[in-house]
Amino acid sequence: MELSPLQIARYEYSPKLPEMLKHDISQIKAVEGKETESVSDQEKIRELFPNTYGMKEVAFAKGENHAEKKHQVVGVILSGGQAPGGHNVITGLYDALKKTDKKNVLLGFKNGPSGLLEDDYIEFTDEYIDAYRNTGGFDIIGSGRTKLETEEQFAVAKEVCARHGITAIVIIGGDDSNTNAAVLAEYMAREKAGVQVIGCPKTIDGDLKNDVIEISFGFDTATKTYSELIGNIERDANSAKKYWHFIKVMGRSASHIALECALETQPNVCLISEEIEKKAMSLNEIAGVIADSVAKRAADGNNFGVVIIPEGLIEFVPEVKKLIAELNDLMAIKATEFGALVEWQDKYSFMKANLSADSFKVFEVLPLDIEKQLLMDRDPHGNVQVSRIETEKLMIALVDKKLKEMKKEGTYNGKFNALNHFFGYEGRCAFPSNFDADYCYSLGYNAFMLVSYGYTGYLSTISNLSAPATEWKAGGIPITKMMNLEQRHGEKKPVIRKALVELDGKPFQYFAAHRDKWAKETCYTFPGAIQYYGPASVCDITTRTLALEQGK
Amino acid sequence: MELSPLQIARYEYSPKLPEMLKHDISQIKAVEGKETESVSDQEKIRELFPNTYGMKEVAFAKGENHAEKKHQVVGVILSGGQAPGGHNVITGLYDALKKTDKKNVLLGFKNGPSGLLEDDYIEFTDEYIDAYRNTGGFDIIGSGRTKLETEEQFAVAKEVCARHGITAIVIIGGDDSNTNAAVLAEYMAREKAGVQVIGCPKTIDGDLKNDVIEISFGFDTATKTYSELIGNIERDANSAKKYWHFIKVMGRSASHIALECALETQPNVCLISEEIEKKAMSLNEIAGVIADSVAKRAADGNNFGVVIIPEGLIEFVPEVKKLIAELNDLMAIKATEFGALVEWQDKYSFMKANLSADSFKVFEVLPLDIEKQLLMDRDPHGNVQVSRIETEKLMIALVDKKLKEMKKEGTYNGKFNALNHFFGYEGRCAFPSNFDADYCYSLGYNAFMLVSYGYTGYLSTISNLSAPATEWKAGGIPITKMMNLEQRHGEKKPVIRKALVELDGKPFQYFAAHRDKWAKETCYTFPGAIQYYGPASVCDITTRTLALEQGK
Repeated sequence: MELSPLQIARYEYSPKLPEMLKHDISQIKAVEGKETESVSDQEKIRELFPNTYGMKEVAFAKGENHAEKKHQVVGVILSGGQAPGGHNVITGLYDALKKTDKKNVLLGFKNGPSGLLEDDYIEFTDEYIDAYRNTGGFDIIGSGRTKLETEEQFAVAKEVCARHGITAIVIIGGDDSNTNAAVLAEYMAREKAGVQVIGCPKTIDGDLKNDVIEISFGFDTATKTYSELIGNIERDANSAKKYWHFIKVMGRSASHIALECALETQPNVCLISEEIEKKAMSLNEIAGVIADSVAKRAADGNNFGVVIIPEGLIEFVPEVKKLIAELNDLMAIKATEFGALVEWQDKYSFMKANLSADSFKVFEVLPLDIEKQLLMDRDPHGNVQVSRIETEKLMIALVDKKLKEMKKEGTYNGKFNALNHFFGYEGRCAFPSNFDADYCYSLGYNAFMLVSYGYTGYLSTISNLSAPATEWKAGGIPITKMMNLEQRHGEKKPVIRKALVELDGKPFQYFAAHRDKWAKETCYTFPGAIQYYGPASVCDITTRTLALEQGK
Repeated sequence: MELSPLQIARYEYSPKLPEMLKHDISQIKAVEGKETESVSDQEKIRELFPNTYGMKEVAFAKGENHAEKKHQVVGVILSGGQAPGGHNVITGLYDALKKTDKKNVLLGFKNGPSGLLEDDYIEFTDEYIDAYRNTGGFDIIGSGRTKLETEEQFAVAKEVCARHGITAIVIIGGDDSNTNAAVLAEYMAREKAGVQVIGCPKTIDGDLKNDVIEISFGFDTATKTYSELIGNIERDANSAKKYWHFIKVMGRSASHIALECALETQPNVCLISEEIEKKAMSLNEIAGVIADSVAKRAADGNNFGVVIIPEGLIEFVPEVKKLIAELNDLMAIKATEFGALVEWQDKYSFMKANLSADSFKVFEVLPLDIEKQLLMDRDPHGNVQVSRIETEKLMIALVDKKLKEMKKEGTYNGKFNALNHFFGYEGRCAFPSNFDADYCYSLGYNAFMLVSYGYTGYLSTISNLSAPATEWKAGGIPITKMMNLEQRHGEKKPVIRKALVELDGKPFQYFAAHRDKWAKETCYTFPGAIQYYGPASVCDITTRTLALEQGK
């Protein structure tokens, strides 16, 4: 493989560790804090996790290492969508494991959790690991979306672990994967399998976040990459002065990415799904918000602008959510009948005949392309594939229609030429920013400290992240602490609560306080490309979201 | 306006100048070389440029400045599409002009050449200029696409120049704008207006390039930005192992951008329009090339990949070129009849009735979306808007069809899930790379040296660009040297010859020698984001295309 100059240079980068992890391994001690309770449904969750509930918080500090010495064979798994920094979690884990004892072994299960079930793995060596230091992607071992959640799977996992003498599994994943890590930890404890399970918080979406997890890794790098592009497009819009750019960014369940990008780039409009749901806005009302900005700017002679749209938007619009639910049901229940229809006209008639009157009303005003996208093949769970729906084009069509009405009414007199973009895959495998490189390396290093001290069912946590890395704190919390019960597939399940954008939180409040000005004026900010070198102000700062949350 | 940390840091950057321009202005002398001839059609072009043809090449060197001292009032214009570095041409021009004499004046005409005709301008001050140093975009004065080409326009330009005592106009633009700069220079010379005209070579497309212009500015930064994204997507593809990404990149008339991105990222397939035209390939054959890579990789268990497609592709496919020409004619000649059609079925029937049998055969196999895009509103010149045609989706549809046939034949057995991307606006206004920042600043600085020495009808040239900046050479060449006659709107016009990808040139040859391997194996290279700081190998290197062309 040919290496780029940046990749060669990044190999030389030494990720920064929190002060307390910089000491020789023999000088890192675990300090236990209070016993924990889950965030809600305590009784029920305690019942579900009899062996791992209520454990204590852990912090690391300088002091005599009192961990029991034993030969460690650790297995690591990358789960779900890519996020920049995943490789550094593994290199940090590897370095701590080898520093503790050169004979310790790190195995990497390939292509996600299925690698554990299929016993498909590699054993890491220095040479192998070195080729992935500070690089993006999950290609070091691949990732996958198989969910580890059934007793049968757990039994297989136990068998595979026994075969290799595995003492611990580290799962790098999002909220679902870490929920499953907790369940697996409970299983292994119950079975006295001698296998600990530790999770690491990954997701570019930023929705795995709470009192103890300040940020999930990858969010920083991904939003910086999208903000680079949005800023470039803003500068283009402001130079050419003839286009409105509608930019969709990843983030299906939560709009943290859209919000962070808006804070970084100050576009004219940014839609936040959580607000739209709260206000129960219709598509027409949303189009109205954008058209209002277009009209105000046109009145000043500015027939250009930038709009940020979160990927999951339409699922948060109540009327569309209802339509999608009906479509999902309909296409499942009448699958054969619907599947036999070839011509669009027949499909359309089928919808007219079978959808509720309200939903059909929403359906019929959509542009043809979007109607077709809504009827495309479902995902394996029978749901519409939201990321395949060109919401950015839908919004352009709706705004265009609205503006034509306004023109007739005399409330708008301008030109509306729109272009659309979607940024998602562009940011998931970027070289991790210094922040993500440091954070991830620390998470992995710290994960091994949790392993060596015998903890299981814990999440590796690094906190105080808006301070310089030396001031970061390292520790662990029981995953059950973050759990509540939620309805999943018809039953109450213990899950890690997903963090949505809080409308009374500081990041959204900052945005809300400025957006009227941004909607009318041109207040663009141009972040530029992620820098790995140069002044600390340029290359070591993490997100605006975190800075605002931590009052900086 | 709120400034990003990078923007603040970039203000501090001092662009590097060639050694010969670093001396005090009093120590820069012009050295004239040989008289020049146009690249072809010499006699005819000499006739068309009686006052400015055959002038000598100029180089600058250390020595007593022998320029006539006079008060300079220079007007500058940004013409056409944005390219990173445009601001630095202006800051370089400003600095040289003010260093020569603080009383000299630089005017910026707003929103392109129309600013000159409408006498819409600003006078630059230190404070104004400083806010744009080393930044992307053309928002310093805006750009526009008005062409300066008629005698009437020239007369207005002359009047506006006289009003402000303008001694020279600097036009920053692509091949067309520089052609027009030469015609304007000739006009001003003929009219003895006392106004010199100097051009600067701009275009991200890289198609303004020849013996004396090694690269047009913006190409370096734009291709680095696209390559960053393509590399990130490659790493994602190689991590998730489930998608084929079809990535269209800007570059309508030439495929330099696609080729440079391919050299930087080593994708599985990169289409080069010039080759497709030369081989007279059909859409079906092109789809075959991609499908072949898909099938070979599937045989190895790799159901993922990356394909780069140049924006202008379909215009180079002979059968589509013919179809588009027929459509353009048809929609112009039968505009009223066609315009009256509302239903798609009627439009389709109209095409069936009016297109030639061959062209209709090409039309009817296209996916519906593409058919519709081909019939969308024409541009002001009556041409189809190629950038609005989703060629990347067209290729996906054609490859999908091809693979289904191959599956039936038993020559393919894999999964084909494809995603599409288009990168263009993302790269045109990025912060200029160090190379473009240095190159552009030098071009502007040098443009003023040409002005002060009384030259007109010249292009500012900086050469030896694959060497470090101190070794660059500064000078100028008569624009007429680059001209030949070409058919434009039915008549022979003197124009700068557009540089297409040369199939026997070193960059394409390198690509051609490696592409079979890249098509089957995974040889991705990940360039990462543009770096402005750090090791020189990371932040000061220009394109692979230039390195190969200059034998490095």
